Amino acid sequence: MEQKQEPITFETSPDRYLHWRMELHGDTARLVWDVQEGRPLRPGYVLKLNSYDLGVDIELADAVQRLRFEHPEVRAVAIVSGKERVFSAGANIHMLASSSHAFKVNFCKFTNETRLAIEDACARSGQRYLAACNGVTAGGGYELAAACDEILLVDDGSSAVSLPEVPLLGVLPGTGGLTRLVDKRGVRRDHADVFCTTAEGIKGQRAVDWRLVDAIAPKSRFEALVGDRLARLAGGAPPKGATGISLAPLKPKLGADAYAYSLVEVGIDRGARTATLRLKGPAGAPPADAAALRREGSLNWMLRLFRELDDAVCRLRFNEEEIGLWLIKTEGAPDLVAAHDAAMQRLASSDWLAREVILMAARTLRRLDVTARSLFALVEPGSCFAGSLLETALAADRTYALDATDRPVHLALSPLNFGALPMGHGPSRLATRLPRSGEKLADLGRRVEKGEPARFAARAAADLGLVTIAADEIDYEDEVRVAIEERTSLSPDALTGMEASLRFPGAESMGAKIFGRLSAWQNWIFQRPNAVGDHGALKCYGRPERPSFDWRRT
Amino acid sequence: MEQKQEPITFETSPDRYLHWRMELHGDTARLVWDVQEGRPLRPGYVLKLNSYDLGVDIELADAVQRLRFEHPEVRAVAIVSGKERVFSAGANIHMLASSSHAFKVNFCKFTNETRLAIEDACARSGQRYLAACNGVTAGGGYELAAACDEILLVDDGSSAVSLPEVPLLGVLPGTGGLTRLVDKRGVRRDHADVFCTTAEGIKGQRAVDWRLVDAIAPKSRFEALVGDRLARLAGGAPPKGATGISLAPLKPKLGADAYAYSLVEVGIDRGARTATLRLKGPAGAPPADAAALRREGSLNWMLRLFRELDDAVCRLRFNEEEIGLWLIKTEGAPDLVAAHDAAMQRLASSDWLAREVILMAARTLRRLDVTARSLFALVEPGSCFAGSLLETALAADRTYALDATDRPVHLALSPLNFGALPMGHGPSRLATRLPRSGEKLADLGRRVEKGEPARFAARAAADLGLVTIAADEIDYEDEVRVAIEERTSLSPDALTGMEASLRFPGAESMGAKIFGRLSAWQNWIFQRPNAVGDHGALKCYGRPERPSFDWRRT
Repeated sequence: MEQKQEPITFETSPDRYLHWRMELHGDTARLVWDVQEGRPLRPGYVLKLNSYDLGVDIELADAVQRLRFEHPEVRAVAIVSGKERVFSAGANIHMLASSSHAFKVNFCKFTNETRLAIEDACARSGQRYLAACNGVTAGGGYELAAACDEILLVDDGSSAVSLPEVPLLGVLPGTGGLTRLVDKRGVRRDHADVFCTTAEGIKGQRAVDWRLVDAIAPKSRFEALVGDRLARLAGGAPPKGATGISLAPLKPKLGADAYAYSLVEVGIDRGARTATLRLKGPAGAPPADAAALRREGSLNWMLRLFRELDDAVCRLRFNEEEIGLWLIKTEGAPDLVAAHDAAMQRLASSDWLAREVILMAARTLRRLDVTARSLFALVEPGSCFAGSLLETALAADRTYALDATDRPVHLALSPLNFGALPMGHGPSRLATRLPRSGEKLADLGRRVEKGEPARFAARAAADLGLVTIAADEIDYEDEVRVAIEERTSLSPDALTGMEASLRFPGAESMGAKIFGRLSAWQNWIFQRPNAVGDHGALKCYGRPERPSFDWRRT
Repeated sequence: MEQKQEPITFETSPDRYLHWRMELHGDTARLVWDVQEGRPLRPGYVLKLNSYDLGVDIELADAVQRLRFEHPEVRAVAIVSGKERVFSAGANIHMLASSSHAFKVNFCKFTNETRLAIEDACARSGQRYLAACNGVTAGGGYELAAACDEILLVDDGSSAVSLPEVPLLGVLPGTGGLTRLVDKRGVRRDHADVFCTTAEGIKGQRAVDWRLVDAIAPKSRFEALVGDRLARLAGGAPPKGATGISLAPLKPKLGADAYAYSLVEVGIDRGARTATLRLKGPAGAPPADAAALRREGSLNWMLRLFRELDDAVCRLRFNEEEIGLWLIKTEGAPDLVAAHDAAMQRLASSDWLAREVILMAARTLRRLDVTARSLFALVEPGSCFAGSLLETALAADRTYALDATDRPVHLALSPLNFGALPMGHGPSRLATRLPRSGEKLADLGRRVEKGEPARFAARAAADLGLVTIAADEIDYEDEVRVAIEERTSLSPDALTGMEASLRFPGAESMGAKIFGRLSAWQNWIFQRPNAVGDHGALKCYGRPERPSFDWRRT
């Protein structure tokens, strides 16, 4: 398969960006992408025409995150190109063609998460985005634009938006493009069909008429259009009148089989093909008010924990493909987590920073939900599955609890379990875990809201549905050991499909459709000889030979 | 690939069933499955333990259809096994392991449609189903049970329900089982996770507690339980007090490259890899009242047309895998279609048969929606894209219309375009085709309801959105020819994924999730070496060797 490289790291900061510049102008900002051809994430391809690889997207994800925490005064962001007459040629094809199946799928997943983070900023943080498409806007370039609130296209007789994946490469646009066309932008499905099979794309007034872009302007007036629209978007968003906090580096200690952060520890057992994630509760009381939260900055327990967890999830996904089962453990004082959660929930009603921290925790948990690994939560003495930490158990495929009389464990609910940390398809993890329990949940929610404790010992938690299997001291260790052995003996593909199907019951959202329906099709197609075989379209791209297809439809 | 056999046919009738018996007892019926081991659809496997293949499911689909039309007095149906201590071992594994990828996917699609037809009968025809699981109920056997309103399981200390596909075969349950567990039955997702990875399944009281079945009874009382529940289900459904009509054989004339029915003609162009489907409008006036509709019986225009179309769609799907683009044409008098539609809509308010005909048309159109072929509708002089026939154009990926001044074409709406023929995910095809047109559609709907004409010439239809491209006589032929050539040159896999993603904008239903999310995952997994490779789980099943997996997760 592809060359095994150094582990991929996900931490970066504007002073280290290779491909992006963040330009701040009061209540607006510009993210300028000017991809350095010669600086791909790994050797073997050249990032021409603002085409991108994971390294480019890691910087974009960082910029989107920092704009929310470090520059809350910014109310509108323009994504603009640093290159003449080129917005972006999309994901780099030679990178895709030379990557393993697992890498391609995880690359698409990460870039999808970045685009959903942009939409999350637009919808929930009052940071609106526009894409200033000054030239060629192809494939993933257009998909990034589609994640913005507005798409502006230069009208120069040649610049077009396009999704040429199907006609040129025999694969699907991998970053939600198909779904966003018809679900978000309201493009007619027959127009979308024409657009997605027309390699050269659509330009000018027709692009507006078909809702592919929001406005066009000739080259001479394009910059003015971008400025006008950006100012209008900024005016539409509520001002925060606040200064940001700085996101300090995480600085994990990285070993061959372990990552140690301050609040998250990861240990890998290669023989068992498992990783254990230990998450630590807070050591002290929560910030008393918004000013205290500011003083804590990125040392705030919740922000720090979820930033570290986010980083660990990304590392494990990309660098440890064979580690198929993650065991989630917690430690600490459940009451302190409940206190932190309640404080943040209270502050969030008036403080943007508390809101941002909760939104960041929600995004991290959603990353966990769509991770293609089996997740077991283990509730053992000393554990701390309360409130926001309990969400990791609710995200798990199963939860085992040790029901020991002398060292009882407790799971606890906090106000954050009742909707503030929604799954990608909308409902809370608690409602998802406890189907047909609407009244019981509403009652629990009212009690928790009033500050009444909602703690459940192992057996009670199993009865309620927070725990899958509660076992006593005689059985627990064997039960868990056998479950782990069984899980890691099963087909990883079948588990991926099964977990993706069981984790999201009920209604779907656009995001859930992108991860479920679209990603599944993409996974399938990325595997098919018509795409990746020696004569498949992806392999033939850029070569003189035409792809040859097995014409049988399924 | 697998042995190329005789074309598969889909017409059957109870007197020809090999594997099922229909037993009628007043307002209840029993569908007894007693699969003949030695009568598979094609040689090479033995249908042990009520395991099934496409041939078994074609009979089931026929029985479900006939119960609605021929036996409307039946208000509850028990699916019971003719074998001792075995309900069903599920889809036959040796059949799956020896089938091509395309066949497997289409097999799952057809069986999914049969199960959705059962749910359609339960929900819309007052024919409720229960599954009497008298023993082993595994895989597709349990999935069939899950399509029923109620699942009863014998409590004999050994009989279990199970979905052993993931642990035993490395594939997903292919008939909606995962989705129905969590979406329909409200099984907790962590319980579903345990259930779907436990090859031996779950039995007795735990199966009830986990909502996997609705009731259990020991062997001595099982028959009584089935009778009680069946009577109760029948009592709950509104009586129809009516006698059925007989569904006459379709008797198409079948050539090597053509199927000719009375109202549907299919011509195959193997060089171009296209099929042309010609659908004919009615020759005369609609039935004036319910008695007239009964006299017409299965010769009624709408019923006949959609039965023939349904049969043609199934034949083309299975027997003509390489024919990737279907061109849909119509001929006849649009006003007559509108008159038939209006009459059926009016009759349906009080007549069960008119309702059944419309429901049958809706199911056929949904089969078209999920067909993995490109669909182009061609609106040419003499065409008849009105009302229920217009739905085929609205199901198409694109519609081309010839805009000729001397031979104008018209598309027309009827009352049936406004919700009576819903897509699988809920909305009408018209609303799906015209996003963000709620008010305009409501206005159109009111006009059509009042009997005002809603006819649109090519250009006006293009402006409204019913037509993708209207071209004049100079351009039309070239435009269509080039579009066909381009379409049939593209990767069939990429087109399948693209079409599945663009055809269903907006909210999802359980059915849409089964066809979209679940089928996509299934397609992917069916293709993966971990399932179908020489050492994959599906290939190793029944052999002494254990499967060996590539452990990399995606």
